[in-house]
Amino acid sequence: MIYLDNAASTQIHENVLESMLPYLKEQYGNPSSIHRYGRLAHKAIEKARKQIAQLINAESSEILFTSGGTESNNTALYGISEKRPNSQIITSSIEHDAILEPSKRLAKNGYDVVYIPVDDKGTVNLEVLENSLSDNTCLVSIMFANNEVGTIEPISKITKLCNEKNIPFHTDAIQAVGKIPIDVKKLGIDLLSISSHKINGPKGIGALYVRKGIDIDPIILGGGQENGLRSGTENVANIVGFGKACEIANLNLSENIFHMKKLRDILVLKILKEIPGVSLNGHPENRLPNNAHFTFLGVAGEDLIIKLDEYGIAASTGSACSVHTQKASHVLKAMGYSYEQITGSLRLTLGLYNTESQIDETVNILKKVTAELRSVSPFKEKYSF
Amino acid sequence: MIYLDNAASTQIHENVLESMLPYLKEQYGNPSSIHRYGRLAHKAIEKARKQIAQLINAESSEILFTSGGTESNNTALYGISEKRPNSQIITSSIEHDAILEPSKRLAKNGYDVVYIPVDDKGTVNLEVLENSLSDNTCLVSIMFANNEVGTIEPISKITKLCNEKNIPFHTDAIQAVGKIPIDVKKLGIDLLSISSHKINGPKGIGALYVRKGIDIDPIILGGGQENGLRSGTENVANIVGFGKACEIANLNLSENIFHMKKLRDILVLKILKEIPGVSLNGHPENRLPNNAHFTFLGVAGEDLIIKLDEYGIAASTGSACSVHTQKASHVLKAMGYSYEQITGSLRLTLGLYNTESQIDETVNILKKVTAELRSVSPFKEKYSF
Repeated sequence: MIYLDNAASTQIHENVLESMLPYLKEQYGNPSSIHRYGRLAHKAIEKARKQIAQLINAESSEILFTSGGTESNNTALYGISEKRPNSQIITSSIEHDAILEPSKRLAKNGYDVVYIPVDDKGTVNLEVLENSLSDNTCLVSIMFANNEVGTIEPISKITKLCNEKNIPFHTDAIQAVGKIPIDVKKLGIDLLSISSHKINGPKGIGALYVRKGIDIDPIILGGGQENGLRSGTENVANIVGFGKACEIANLNLSENIFHMKKLRDILVLKILKEIPGVSLNGHPENRLPNNAHFTFLGVAGEDLIIKLDEYGIAASTGSACSVHTQKASHVLKAMGYSYEQITGSLRLTLGLYNTESQIDETVNILKKVTAELRSVSPFKEKYSF
Repeated sequence: MIYLDNAASTQIHENVLESMLPYLKEQYGNPSSIHRYGRLAHKAIEKARKQIAQLINAESSEILFTSGGTESNNTALYGISEKRPNSQIITSSIEHDAILEPSKRLAKNGYDVVYIPVDDKGTVNLEVLENSLSDNTCLVSIMFANNEVGTIEPISKITKLCNEKNIPFHTDAIQAVGKIPIDVKKLGIDLLSISSHKINGPKGIGALYVRKGIDIDPIILGGGQENGLRSGTENVANIVGFGKACEIANLNLSENIFHMKKLRDILVLKILKEIPGVSLNGHPENRLPNNAHFTFLGVAGEDLIIKLDEYGIAASTGSACSVHTQKASHVLKAMGYSYEQITGSLRLTLGLYNTESQIDETVNILKKVTAELRSVSPFKEKYSF
């Protein structure tokens, strides 16, 4: 199998699993218990908190554990807006559903939600953003990098605008953490969402960075864990694994970026060169090192991934999460793409374990599969395939 | 070490861990992905859903995965009440904080929250409950069994009252599932919270049973997983382990109950016989088979568990979760206990892996430790220790 869907989920690093095992075996204490079992679990959590903080240059005390990226995003939106009823929330039209859906609920509950448009490369319009900021804005939430097309947003420029006006800024950095260097202090970020399973950690665990001084309300209430900001017995093993994944990602960041970018560039070049009627979507330079997103004219992306799957290649049309809704990509729509362009989309996202020979094989199979599909395409004559 | 804090958390069953490992290794797909990796993950989740349903005689489609018992409880309360602003919610005064804290928030947001009192055994007052039910009641939430003193509530009598009036009934069954037989259909339960790590499954995963026909609103929004009721990439490995834990609990239920009850009865009898000034709290018969909760007069429970810890015994004063708040137990207060009685409380909760010799050793150490602590107790003369 060739796994090219690393934006959907990644393989757990073997050292991550190794770090988790004691907490899935003999170290089963509840971190709130005051006996030895509890203390050991508590200590493990605090170590992980530090590892996560270090990856983004935060303080340990600024890391809040959640059940994953989606909960982190929900916590940021609800947690900030709760205190300011009927205020304004600014986000973008290409956010993940974990931002867009809570935003819709907030809009229904009286908040004024503004969706900043993007250009055809998926970059948010800074001018519109700047003009939208007002005294009534309680939060700006713009993703660090888009999960479908990989475009990296101009975060430092956005934080500059927000910081000047003292407006809290949140970023969904789920696809960006571990793929590009992120320094929350230097960037002036107030809240940032991370997911473990996108960076070779376990699923079901994530974090929200909440800058010291930013006050949020919890969504889930109960025993008062995480300083009352996220109740529920801590998922110790997954937290430990998440910490380890961050430590490894931090340690190998340059080398991982180099590896992914190298393979990605080969993949893109070969596909564009060897298969006609294909274009690269997203920003040509400001994009995640592991993301390649294409439009294959005259082919349905879904057919493409089903065919690829038959050949042992795991790929995606876009966000795995939107499979449930079976909508056409709102990201590509926002970028001004036609229905036909959207239909033909294929996302290939690289990870630590991909190799150059896998890339070569993928291109060869893609060439073959595309030809097959196009030979029966209703667009056959239009594009003279 | 002798672990007698199984109400706080339990050791993962080795077959549970074994079932999880493939999903922590090679089966790392996102269940929403449509390629082979995704399909395998999806299939694993659906198998687990069935295993969980079977333990409580529900349908698979009635099981909603959450990040744990706390989220399940929050989802039940918010999920039901959301549609009925300013309505009434009936709960009890001895619920876990994962019910009480969301209830407080709901009260702040305009809901009328009624706390049913309990008697000195911790049993809710059915008469008060019946008289409190009204057309404005949107939900009754009463725990199946108390997490501190182990008292099992008269659930079938409560559901009868609620079912007659067509009022949704939720129960926090986190301590009861796997400890006593539960049949949601027979009992007429509408919503029920389960936690995996209390029944030898992994932490960070739980479920909410939502009877077909009961309509709830989600707390966490995003990609639309769990039929839109709980977004976020599924915690596949933990879900699989949770399913396995339920299967094992179901298979061994009678035998586990026999084992825990036997050890618990020996423990209670020996302590009451061999240590003076000790009383058993909670209901003498209607109690969880693994729970023993005592008041040791003239001793601070915290000192007791610290001493026990020195001797390698893991115990608790009550709920692990309330350690953060360091409040005196609201459960014992509601049962009418004096501050002094509350202070001297010790909870010993048994699990699958405890042995009779551990019980004997525990009683011996307790005897010794209690004598030591009482020799310096300010109540020394009062009780003529």
